[in-house]
Amino acid sequence: MTFLDQLDPDALMRLQQTLLAEHSALKARGLRLNIARGKPSREQLDLSNAMLSILRADDCVTAAGDDARNYGGDHQGVFELRELFSPLLGAPPEQIVAGGNSSLSMMHDVITWALLKGIPGSTEPWSRLRDLTFICPAPGYELHHKICEEFGIHLLPVPVTPDGPDMDIVEMLTADQNVKGMWCVPTYANPTGEIYSQDVVARLAAMKTGASDFRLFWDDAYVVHHLGDKPHSTTKILDACLRAGNPDRPFVFSSTSKITFAGAGVGFLAASAANVAWYVDRVRRRGPGPDKLNQLRHVRFLKDADGLRRHMEAHRAILAPKFATLLQAFEHRLKDRGVAQWSCPEGGYFISIETRAGAARRTVALAQEAGVTLTTAGSTWPHGNDPKDSNIRIAPSFASIEDVEVAAEVIALSILLAAIEVLGKKAFCPA
Amino acid sequence: MTFLDQLDPDALMRLQQTLLAEHSALKARGLRLNIARGKPSREQLDLSNAMLSILRADDCVTAAGDDARNYGGDHQGVFELRELFSPLLGAPPEQIVAGGNSSLSMMHDVITWALLKGIPGSTEPWSRLRDLTFICPAPGYELHHKICEEFGIHLLPVPVTPDGPDMDIVEMLTADQNVKGMWCVPTYANPTGEIYSQDVVARLAAMKTGASDFRLFWDDAYVVHHLGDKPHSTTKILDACLRAGNPDRPFVFSSTSKITFAGAGVGFLAASAANVAWYVDRVRRRGPGPDKLNQLRHVRFLKDADGLRRHMEAHRAILAPKFATLLQAFEHRLKDRGVAQWSCPEGGYFISIETRAGAARRTVALAQEAGVTLTTAGSTWPHGNDPKDSNIRIAPSFASIEDVEVAAEVIALSILLAAIEVLGKKAFCPA
Repeated sequence: MTFLDQLDPDALMRLQQTLLAEHSALKARGLRLNIARGKPSREQLDLSNAMLSILRADDCVTAAGDDARNYGGDHQGVFELRELFSPLLGAPPEQIVAGGNSSLSMMHDVITWALLKGIPGSTEPWSRLRDLTFICPAPGYELHHKICEEFGIHLLPVPVTPDGPDMDIVEMLTADQNVKGMWCVPTYANPTGEIYSQDVVARLAAMKTGASDFRLFWDDAYVVHHLGDKPHSTTKILDACLRAGNPDRPFVFSSTSKITFAGAGVGFLAASAANVAWYVDRVRRRGPGPDKLNQLRHVRFLKDADGLRRHMEAHRAILAPKFATLLQAFEHRLKDRGVAQWSCPEGGYFISIETRAGAARRTVALAQEAGVTLTTAGSTWPHGNDPKDSNIRIAPSFASIEDVEVAAEVIALSILLAAIEVLGKKAFCPA
Repeated sequence: MTFLDQLDPDALMRLQQTLLAEHSALKARGLRLNIARGKPSREQLDLSNAMLSILRADDCVTAAGDDARNYGGDHQGVFELRELFSPLLGAPPEQIVAGGNSSLSMMHDVITWALLKGIPGSTEPWSRLRDLTFICPAPGYELHHKICEEFGIHLLPVPVTPDGPDMDIVEMLTADQNVKGMWCVPTYANPTGEIYSQDVVARLAAMKTGASDFRLFWDDAYVVHHLGDKPHSTTKILDACLRAGNPDRPFVFSSTSKITFAGAGVGFLAASAANVAWYVDRVRRRGPGPDKLNQLRHVRFLKDADGLRRHMEAHRAILAPKFATLLQAFEHRLKDRGVAQWSCPEGGYFISIETRAGAARRTVALAQEAGVTLTTAGSTWPHGNDPKDSNIRIAPSFASIEDVEVAAEVIALSILLAAIEVLGKKAFCPA
């Protein structure tokens, strides 16, 4: 195989003809596949079906003696569930809040309340700042960006390295007192898949910040979502920040959305005692607190750390072959062609592809023409604006393995075709 | 029986001695009763136990074809549940949002988003106003007040009449452009029990407001919570506002917290198409939307309007005798004594007592001494400050009927004793 760049114009055109014929044949199949969203498959959801009816009427009382069907109990969530997730979140149960069915909405809580009230360490509500700014490693997670965009918070993208965000740049940016927050997905990042190194975590914990109330929004969504034989883990940020003398810096988030039921899981927040007290005090004024029955369901179903580990093994058995299928197809069709680089994640829900500059949007369009819906190009960047138009996020979890196999062919083909188009334009444009 | 005021000092003192002896005897019993909170009893919760295990793995798909276990589906909530509650909320399903386990948190959403973004009709975010103000009929619901207090929103109490808030005053206050909202519990108000009359609803719908984005926060929490033989209903506010040319004025809220499980119900919001679109657009940026499994549980369990009606009849059979017990005791011990007036609610969760001015706090303290915890005096008023120190809220739902009977005696006795103390102070103070 040769780099596309090294082909002469005739060879390139002949290759394009062959690929277009292949693309037409795929179009003719009338496929309708969707690998746009990190959504568990039916088979994965089935793993948790026992949870649907696990609560008996005489078994709805928490360890603290609260009837989970009623008002009352702890606004911080059912203690034994917090205990179960304590090692994963790197915090004692007292520093964990178990919430409703969404950790994203807990991130949204922290940001709206910080805007309206300020957080521990604030001298004024964040909404008073004209140039309130967050750092976001990019490519990153669309819904992180959207919360900021919704409330007019500026987003500063920083490059992603195999060890996490480029810390030289991060340290430079956080010196600005308008920079109040930073998004992080430290374990199997969305979408780029990297695991933050010990050094990166230590630097994030210790770096000087211009704002006294700067916060890391540490979204450890994939903390137990391993794909490889060896489970990876990130240095626990709460410990690292405590050691560095910045105990209030991190808000850690996670959830069971991709452990039990994606629409009916439990979200978690872990933080310093001061941050948790601040958060729970707000929750208390908002109503009766989280759905304790659903939290008890999770306790009864997952049981303990070992139960959780075995459950995640079953997820892995379903997910890992889908990732392997895609990676094999990419290896087979795209290796040494000089058209794309892709991540080989050892956990999480995504494969991230870097196409040639200017080819991502076209690749997604070509895949769509052939019946395969991918995540909208650009959506991994703030405001949906990928400056190089090169990033594509692949989410193979929902589709069947047969569909993933077909989708992999379509994607690879679309990447090749888009790359040739980009090369062609270059050839025909005056330099 | 005679009015206390007409007793001569000696007779009053003799009565006080008798009552104090009775109070001492009650104290000696070491009671520990709590009738502070509108919390369903275990017996009421048991009515919904079938809901715990009603979902089967092969029955988790909504009418729209969405797997309720997964992400996806409608951020507005499961359609068939909205359909079921449509007649009660007075809105078509398209204008209803079914949410999480708390309608109060949906009120909180509307207020925080109005503060940060403004709502349809706003010229700027509400947080820009220095003197942002809400109207609250008082006595009213503590948690309504707390949301406003949390965000520095001024509260203007208006008197409650048997037909609802005093509309002459309300109409005067809403002329001020800083007045952006008004709390209303239109059916069996918390705690005063009145049902807003047709005329009051029409005036609320039609009144001129200084703010173009004024909103009624219409908390119809007790819409199906009848205690009497005849179910009452309030004129539907969305219709009334539409007729009056103010379609965007109301946000209607309700929930199943006191229908199914208090901690694991479903909250509702109903409003104009513009308001609902605004709300759902925000929800969409916050995460995966409500727990669809819990919404489906409600559909499968309540089934239809008739199922809901029968279910509420069963609640009534448990609740009504507790209210009757209290009212009988008050009638027996307090009638024609000139010490208190009380509501005789035909629905809802509360009895509201007006003691003599200055006697509420002391009454609650005396009851506490005898082992009966009542709602903190003053808590029905903004900032916990009852200007006359006269209102007490009684919530008999949680206690057993035997306990309610004892509590009724303690409360009546405490009211009498506190009234005598107030009279005594008057007698000894120079005018």
